[in-house]
Amino acid sequence: MTSEHSAPASGETPSATEIDDLVIVIPAGGVGSRLWPLSQPHRPKFLLDLLGTGATLIQDTVARVRPLSSRVLVVTGERHVDAVAGQLDLPREDLLTEPSPRDSMAAIALAAAVVEHRWGPRVIGSFAADHLIPDAASFRATVARAVEVAREGKVVVIGIEPTEPSTAFGYIEMGEALTGAARHVVAFTEKPDAETAAGMLARGGFAWNAGMFVVRTDALLGHLDRLQPALAAGVREIAAAWDGPARAEVLARVWPTLTRIAIDHAIAEPVAAAGGVAVVPATFEWHDVGDFDSLAELSGVAGTAVSIHRTAPVGAVGAAGALVVGGTKPVVIVGVDDAVVVESDEALLVTVRSAAQRVKDASASLETA
Amino acid sequence: MTSEHSAPASGETPSATEIDDLVIVIPAGGVGSRLWPLSQPHRPKFLLDLLGTGATLIQDTVARVRPLSSRVLVVTGERHVDAVAGQLDLPREDLLTEPSPRDSMAAIALAAAVVEHRWGPRVIGSFAADHLIPDAASFRATVARAVEVAREGKVVVIGIEPTEPSTAFGYIEMGEALTGAARHVVAFTEKPDAETAAGMLARGGFAWNAGMFVVRTDALLGHLDRLQPALAAGVREIAAAWDGPARAEVLARVWPTLTRIAIDHAIAEPVAAAGGVAVVPATFEWHDVGDFDSLAELSGVAGTAVSIHRTAPVGAVGAAGALVVGGTKPVVIVGVDDAVVVESDEALLVTVRSAAQRVKDASASLETA
Repeated sequence: MTSEHSAPASGETPSATEIDDLVIVIPAGGVGSRLWPLSQPHRPKFLLDLLGTGATLIQDTVARVRPLSSRVLVVTGERHVDAVAGQLDLPREDLLTEPSPRDSMAAIALAAAVVEHRWGPRVIGSFAADHLIPDAASFRATVARAVEVAREGKVVVIGIEPTEPSTAFGYIEMGEALTGAARHVVAFTEKPDAETAAGMLARGGFAWNAGMFVVRTDALLGHLDRLQPALAAGVREIAAAWDGPARAEVLARVWPTLTRIAIDHAIAEPVAAAGGVAVVPATFEWHDVGDFDSLAELSGVAGTAVSIHRTAPVGAVGAAGALVVGGTKPVVIVGVDDAVVVESDEALLVTVRSAAQRVKDASASLETA
Repeated sequence: MTSEHSAPASGETPSATEIDDLVIVIPAGGVGSRLWPLSQPHRPKFLLDLLGTGATLIQDTVARVRPLSSRVLVVTGERHVDAVAGQLDLPREDLLTEPSPRDSMAAIALAAAVVEHRWGPRVIGSFAADHLIPDAASFRATVARAVEVAREGKVVVIGIEPTEPSTAFGYIEMGEALTGAARHVVAFTEKPDAETAAGMLARGGFAWNAGMFVVRTDALLGHLDRLQPALAAGVREIAAAWDGPARAEVLARVWPTLTRIAIDHAIAEPVAAAGGVAVVPATFEWHDVGDFDSLAELSGVAGTAVSIHRTAPVGAVGAAGALVVGGTKPVVIVGVDDAVVVESDEALLVTVRSAAQRVKDASASLETA
């Protein structure tokens, strides 16, 4: 489902229609350590207004999904739940608090089990809290198409059409056509090296795995019963107690026992191998904004410097394409192309776009400095 | 005269002896625009404690020369005279204030004329306010030797033995031996290109021109009478009025008419061509600290980062040899070797050592930003 295909020419406007049997799940975890010092353990990426638009990533995510469903559940850590509640206009009972991080399978399975316990079997669509999708209407149209496929019992992923041989994302190998635009998933691949990525882009038939899952709760929990029975039993027990007086006791007792595993390894890969996963291809622009190189690209850095969250001027002498974030003083960059200068209340980062991935080690470097 | 030659083995300790007929002149001008944002028009380089030693460059300069003479005159601009007075323990009448910059010849000639008017003919030694010489004793021993030559009527320059084929300095071509260690000056050359500099270093017989002049006031003013008669007459008229009630009137009337010319062009070059300039070679370490590359070298930046004027830690990830000056927050540099990060109250500079010369355009880049 591409943005062109969802245009009014088709006579449908699925993006404007609420989908009765859909509940949105937003797992809000992950620090985003390559965006240090903006992101920090106490202030993870999803709480940031990275682009200076006035909306944080999680606010933007909720605004994007809400026309699809009035039921939006956010799963986040105890440390961040107050900040999330402050940023979002959601009922407090729809913020599911994890006592400790147990990886994405526990978070999404808990949400699925709570959904099913509250409202009976539903389709859930799970979307990360910290990605950026400029064309929300195209996104929603794609989700609507994915819901149609999910209703038949498949685990459905949304696959982003690659625009470059990125080594930063996992890939989805797409097989034969299923229904509509959906195709079978042959396999998921981990983040490839550059040569493998170039080969996949040249061969075609691969999509980026953006971690977007659309699936019936009973299908998901059924797979889980079979593949991770202890985890399934655990989240079902917690979900049964969630809206009652025993929640705290059950959560404290059961949550720490849940297996730490990503949904990709727990469900997506084994179910795909058995032919149970479908992919709905999408061509909407999607960014995980994982590092400052990605942020610079998103911000439209070209021949000149781009500033975010600052008003003081930026000068350049023999230095093209700078990204300057935060700080109150004038900044001048001399003789460093693609410079990235980021100032938070706590620290100053100086790097270049080509080194953006290594920023994840920046915080640790201070501890030994 | 090298530091080795001035060791106690010679039985002399000229560096500890005040020289009765010597007056020190310190022209304190020049912004030092390649050290922006530390140096600025309102806060020129000579007023800065660049290395964080606790002494500014002009304080360090005065401390270095004072054992040679209790008479130290500083020539500086109106805009900076209060700051200079605040930094130095000198009688106010020994701070000669220029109403406007008229280049080095007017500054030094005015000082020479004031000296001669106050005390009669003397030897003056003129040394820039913003250079760094770690071995002050060796410097003073060299000056003492230069004074001996100057007493005979020569214009004497101190020539620094080159340690590399620098393109940042002018060179002195040294000729036949004169007396003691002194040699005739064949010619002065402007800052050379790299090839010329390498050739001079290979051939030998060249010294860096550090702008250090030692000369009798009557010899200097005599040359000026002949070569720049209007300038000579002007400074003599101002000097005659300097310590009396007419100073302000004469200064306001005459100073603006003085020719703007450097002492190199007005005196050193033409007098050298006529055989009247001598050079005393010196091997003491000398730095003009003209840019952040020079400051980094002086600060001993090696495999790790060096901090000046800051206490917060500096981290590095794949980044060797950083120089970080000022600022209160932790700084991390990722993937940029030889980074230079400088923060003043007014601005932040990000550059690399190899681009240090281009920092002179940094301030202007903000005006068009």
